[in-house]
Amino acid sequence: MLIKPDLRLSRVIRITWRVDLWMIALCTGAYLVETYVVRGSIHIPGSIPALFGTALAFFIGFNNNQAYSRWWEARTVWGGLVNDSRSWTRNILTYTKATQTATQPVQEIPAEDLALRMIRRNLSFLHALKSTLRNTNSQDYQAYLNQADQKALIHYTNIPAALLDLQSQDLQTLRDTSQIDGFTFLTLNELLVRFCDSMGKCERIKNTVFPVTYLYFTRIFIWIMIAVLTMDIVEEAGIWSIGLGWLIGFVFHVTHLNGLSLMNPFDGNPACVPLDSIVRTVEINVLQMLKSSQIPSPIEAANGEYIL
Amino acid sequence: MLIKPDLRLSRVIRITWRVDLWMIALCTGAYLVETYVVRGSIHIPGSIPALFGTALAFFIGFNNNQAYSRWWEARTVWGGLVNDSRSWTRNILTYTKATQTATQPVQEIPAEDLALRMIRRNLSFLHALKSTLRNTNSQDYQAYLNQADQKALIHYTNIPAALLDLQSQDLQTLRDTSQIDGFTFLTLNELLVRFCDSMGKCERIKNTVFPVTYLYFTRIFIWIMIAVLTMDIVEEAGIWSIGLGWLIGFVFHVTHLNGLSLMNPFDGNPACVPLDSIVRTVEINVLQMLKSSQIPSPIEAANGEYIL
Amino acid sequence: MLIKPDLRLSRVIRITWRVDLWMIALCTGAYLVETYVVRGSIHIPGSIPALFGTALAFFIGFNNNQAYSRWWEARTVWGGLVNDSRSWTRNILTYTKATQTATQPVQEIPAEDLALRMIRRNLSFLHALKSTLRNTNSQDYQAYLNQADQKALIHYTNIPAALLDLQSQDLQTLRDTSQIDGFTFLTLNELLVRFCDSMGKCERIKNTVFPVTYLYFTRIFIWIMIAVLTMDIVEEAGIWSIGLGWLIGFVFHVTHLNGLSLMNPFDGNPACVPLDSIVRTVEINVLQMLKSSQIPSPIEAANGEYIL
Amino acid sequence: MLIKPDLRLSRVIRITWRVDLWMIALCTGAYLVETYVVRGSIHIPGSIPALFGTALAFFIGFNNNQAYSRWWEARTVWGGLVNDSRSWTRNILTYTKATQTATQPVQEIPAEDLALRMIRRNLSFLHALKSTLRNTNSQDYQAYLNQADQKALIHYTNIPAALLDLQSQDLQTLRDTSQIDGFTFLTLNELLVRFCDSMGKCERIKNTVFPVTYLYFTRIFIWIMIAVLTMDIVEEAGIWSIGLGWLIGFVFHVTHLNGLSLMNPFDGNPACVPLDSIVRTVEINVLQMLKSSQIPSPIEAANGEYIL
Amino acid sequence: MLIKPDLRLSRVIRITWRVDLWMIALCTGAYLVETYVVRGSIHIPGSIPALFGTALAFFIGFNNNQAYSRWWEARTVWGGLVNDSRSWTRNILTYTKATQTATQPVQEIPAEDLALRMIRRNLSFLHALKSTLRNTNSQDYQAYLNQADQKALIHYTNIPAALLDLQSQDLQTLRDTSQIDGFTFLTLNELLVRFCDSMGKCERIKNTVFPVTYLYFTRIFIWIMIAVLTMDIVEEAGIWSIGLGWLIGFVFHVTHLNGLSLMNPFDGNPACVPLDSIVRTVEINVLQMLKSSQIPSPIEAANGEYIL
Repeated sequence: MLIKPDLRLSRVIRITWRVDLWMIALCTGAYLVETYVVRGSIHIPGSIPALFGTALAFFIGFNNNQAYSRWWEARTVWGGLVNDSRSWTRNILTYTKATQTATQPVQEIPAEDLALRMIRRNLSFLHALKSTLRNTNSQDYQAYLNQADQKALIHYTNIPAALLDLQSQDLQTLRDTSQIDGFTFLTLNELLVRFCDSMGKCERIKNTVFPVTYLYFTRIFIWIMIAVLTMDIVEEAGIWSIGLGWLIGFVFHVTHLNGLSLMNPFDGNPACVPLDSIVRTVEINVLQMLKSSQIPSPIEAANGEYIL
Repeated sequence: MLIKPDLRLSRVIRITWRVDLWMIALCTGAYLVETYVVRGSIHIPGSIPALFGTALAFFIGFNNNQAYSRWWEARTVWGGLVNDSRSWTRNILTYTKATQTATQPVQEIPAEDLALRMIRRNLSFLHALKSTLRNTNSQDYQAYLNQADQKALIHYTNIPAALLDLQSQDLQTLRDTSQIDGFTFLTLNELLVRFCDSMGKCERIKNTVFPVTYLYFTRIFIWIMIAVLTMDIVEEAGIWSIGLGWLIGFVFHVTHLNGLSLMNPFDGNPACVPLDSIVRTVEINVLQMLKSSQIPSPIEAANGEYIL
Repeated sequence: MLIKPDLRLSRVIRITWRVDLWMIALCTGAYLVETYVVRGSIHIPGSIPALFGTALAFFIGFNNNQAYSRWWEARTVWGGLVNDSRSWTRNILTYTKATQTATQPVQEIPAEDLALRMIRRNLSFLHALKSTLRNTNSQDYQAYLNQADQKALIHYTNIPAALLDLQSQDLQTLRDTSQIDGFTFLTLNELLVRFCDSMGKCERIKNTVFPVTYLYFTRIFIWIMIAVLTMDIVEEAGIWSIGLGWLIGFVFHVTHLNGLSLMNPFDGNPACVPLDSIVRTVEINVLQMLKSSQIPSPIEAANGEYIL
Repeated sequence: MLIKPDLRLSRVIRITWRVDLWMIALCTGAYLVETYVVRGSIHIPGSIPALFGTALAFFIGFNNNQAYSRWWEARTVWGGLVNDSRSWTRNILTYTKATQTATQPVQEIPAEDLALRMIRRNLSFLHALKSTLRNTNSQDYQAYLNQADQKALIHYTNIPAALLDLQSQDLQTLRDTSQIDGFTFLTLNELLVRFCDSMGKCERIKNTVFPVTYLYFTRIFIWIMIAVLTMDIVEEAGIWSIGLGWLIGFVFHVTHLNGLSLMNPFDGNPACVPLDSIVRTVEINVLQMLKSSQIPSPIEAANGEYIL
Repeated sequence: MLIKPDLRLSRVIRITWRVDLWMIALCTGAYLVETYVVRGSIHIPGSIPALFGTALAFFIGFNNNQAYSRWWEARTVWGGLVNDSRSWTRNILTYTKATQTATQPVQEIPAEDLALRMIRRNLSFLHALKSTLRNTNSQDYQAYLNQADQKALIHYTNIPAALLDLQSQDLQTLRDTSQIDGFTFLTLNELLVRFCDSMGKCERIKNTVFPVTYLYFTRIFIWIMIAVLTMDIVEEAGIWSIGLGWLIGFVFHVTHLNGLSLMNPFDGNPACVPLDSIVRTVEINVLQMLKSSQIPSPIEAANGEYIL
């Protein structure tokens, strides 16, 4: 997530220099063809670039709107994971501890231990999900698991889903040992279902390639429009048509690239959803609720420019 | 789902060659009429193609937006089926197995068997639903059913719905034999209702023809605009008006075809929702949770180009 | 719901002939006024029809988008009714029959009979709701009711709502006689609330007139634009301005009429939501679940052209 | 809610005569300035009104879309209130009456009376909410309350919220006296929460002023555009530029006013949500369910033109 | 929230004077360059500003629509907090008081006291959340807490989340002491989960910076367009091109600034969501329900112009 209101020029150039060079080459070519080959024998009517503009307005609006929707849905899903993690922690802490103070019949497993495990495992779930979505193969999630859990995960490819299974088993243990009743079970299981839903939504956004044809033809049509426009305005603007052609091309390419940067919100580029920062926020909140003494500090902006 | 960022030229040609030939014929005709018949006796004002552009901008935006909504809703519904299948498996596995370890009064049916049946039948449900949506008449869903189930399905035309009935009956058996209590029943039945809803949503998208008039008039208006535009620019662009007319026509036809390829997301064309891949993902997840030794490999991209 | 990808020309003409004649009359009038009365003493600048185009682009986009939303919401609500009807049938069949096999204390009413009544009454509800929405005053819904029910409905104007009351009473009977427990009651009553919501949503769509001013001014502005445009292009296009004026008018009128055909999705016109077909689908599904021997055939397309 | 497909000309004039006069004055002024002061020494380029058109297209689309959303949300919320009122009545009638037939231990309060009170108080709630939203200060809601209720409301400023408190107290009484069990309590309390949500949504729509800047600048920019356009076309259209300027201004002002009429859907203007009619519909439905002999007739259209 | 339909000119100038001066400088520069440097040796074709207009139409529409969505979602979330606060108060008051009248086995904590604490703590939650969102560091929330609560909050950075934890503990106490049963627990805990969700949604909107690139390039492109447009129209409009360039620039800048004022709806600027007023409304409602004698008066509009 970019946080500085002004982009550095270096960033703009870094993103667009390649396309800029190609555009200048294309505009120069179009200028030369129009001036030395065609020599005004034919003229491209002004309605042609205008109709291209209409089509591109559709493509650019479409791509950017859908990209933003994906990005915002991704952000919303992780906002939901934050909320549900807090509710999970709050409910586990309160509703199992309190029950423990009342004398319960069977307590083979120390209730607080089990509750603590379930709360820490939730942090592990968030780390594992983040790692899966970003393809980082990070093992950070192990830090919040005990050895039994680590061993149980060996045979699974989908770590976050496997962690939810473990949560479910412990939830059943809480219930079998009468540490929670059916009503609390309903409440906590509902949260597990919501975690599963959020996980699936993230996978859907990550794994669904945005329809390729829209992006492909947007690019193609921008290139054609630049050439057509440059040839159209040579007569009026002379050699400046190269610059003007590039300028319009720059505008449309930048708009297109804006959309692309939001399209895959878990990619780890500077515009993506700041999972590092979100997960850290939950960690801080949860560890404070556990009255932990070792609370990590919030994620700092990289380069003062963006948060990952 | 197309996965390569660049379309092969062969694919573009394969999709558009027919319409391209017709457009060239039409533009040539319009050029000949304007040049040899009309001979400048009348002139088509530039505002006419511009107003056509306005109308087409609406049609194309409308069709594509609604098509994308159908496609994305279809993808979202199947994302929900993935999540609910995982929750179903997790809940059945945990909440019925755990209860079994506690000594239960009556156990006419081995609990694990029943649970296993219900989990496998869920995979069958996904296969049957996929086959119905794609009209493939595939019998893959039989692989996860025992003989009793296979026999029970004979008289039904709507197989996925019939499978949900069987799930419901086994759920009632679990409850009658006290293997689950009312709270777990609520949880599991809620998932059955969600499966039923997702199934119905897929049927709705599949069976609701996109309003025919929008597609029909989009096509008609593109053709008329090409003719009108070509005639309009003959004076300025001469014989090149044929090429320019085709170019604008190509842009609008391609945009229209983009929308069409998303409109029926269960069709089995390369741009559709990748049901094969989604169902396989669930299979892998579920079979790992069952600790099965025979886990299928993920679906490979056809031709390195798209996933079905 | 229209199902043929191509409209018959006869249908297009049938829908538009009246407006076509008026447009030709108007364009001819505008041509005559411009040619013989005004005689070029004033000229309408091209920016006037262009600004009209901007305003009409808004109106047409707005009307069509909202009309499509109404149509799609109507379709979605009925999709929900289909799903809930299946869940209702499945739940009633499974959860009350199964309880019956266990020995229950009091059984003043044969459980199967009552369950069967509740399932059949649900089909009656769908028929009654369809008849209300289409204003057909059809009595088809009576076929699925026993005499007691038919008598109970005499004093009600809102038949579908009254049928839900009867369902509720029988649900209470099931519970009073201990045939279902509180958890199943929750499940079934939740479905009744959903039926009530869906019914209310249909009434909302049917009874809420689309804001009249939008439709009125769209019509008015199309007519004015045609006149203004025709006068604007007379100089350039001569007598052909009549044809071109009509052509643009045709485009905008057709687009407007497209929206109108979706605006009242329960009207019974060929573009409406195919209630007949949807209700029949549920009937077939439910009667198969009841193992009925008399299963009706699906609704056929009228004229091979559309489904009601 | 306007119900006649054609607006009366008198209504159009009544709404726009003031703005029409101002526009004619402005256009005349612009014509005089251009003709006698500027005298063609400068010329306003055609791109200026065109760019104004672009900006206004945004403003008008934005305002109208958001206004329609507010209006449709308001209508949807009241649709929900209708459905929930029916469910409330159905549930109270069935689930408390039926329980009463079974012999209950304690019955300090006659069950039917209490149920009847709760059903009638719901009608009171709808009347009170309507009166609050429309600022009519009507006392109609008193008709459905007994004296104890009327007295209890004296100290409250928010009458609808206070009525929900009374419903909640009676619900608790039903439960304390074992007339309903926990499952029915859940069902009924869920409806109370929904009533509270719907009430709050209405207040949100009513109390949230649409961002003033959008409306203000839309007005300002329309006025400027009219002046600029008129001056731009004087050369081509002569004195007719006054009429054409007014015509375009009329189009944009009318579109803007269309949006304004939907923006505050509880205002009581002819385009607003027809609360009188909706509340009356619920009254009729509920009183029929209570088998009342005095059933009011539906609300008639005022002037045959609109329903309030 | 601005409440006066007309903006004061002083406000418009205060917001735009800086950008106005820069625009006049830029337009003057462009005029001078075109007149004295370029001298008509090249001419900027009219299609260039028109294509810029197309791109800016996208950017401005996009930014404003998303900004409005953020603002409206923020308002909706706080509307939900209002509703849930009322439901919370109503439920706590009714369902715990009523239970108290029945003789309960253990009552270590006076029930009314606890209920009262929970209701007052909810007001504290709203104040704390408001203060967090506005970064005001206000301590108003302390007024509704007893000393034990104040002490418990010392070690927390996220005060609203910590308050929900305290609510959860007291809810468990109510249940441990049998003052509420499982069904009421479900109801009340559901409200706590909703408070947690609403809090998280507010944080999401506050902490998610709107994609910087969209705002940056909107600004850049407006500046370039002004320069290009001014140079384009110098020939036709002479020195007036400075004024016309400024006018168009003013229109686009104002539209952009409109969007910006809604983008961060918790900022405390005059256009933001009126949290002060919303919280006060809840306070009044709740204190009336508690029959408090000290009821604060509603928030007054600042300067008669806006409500915070």
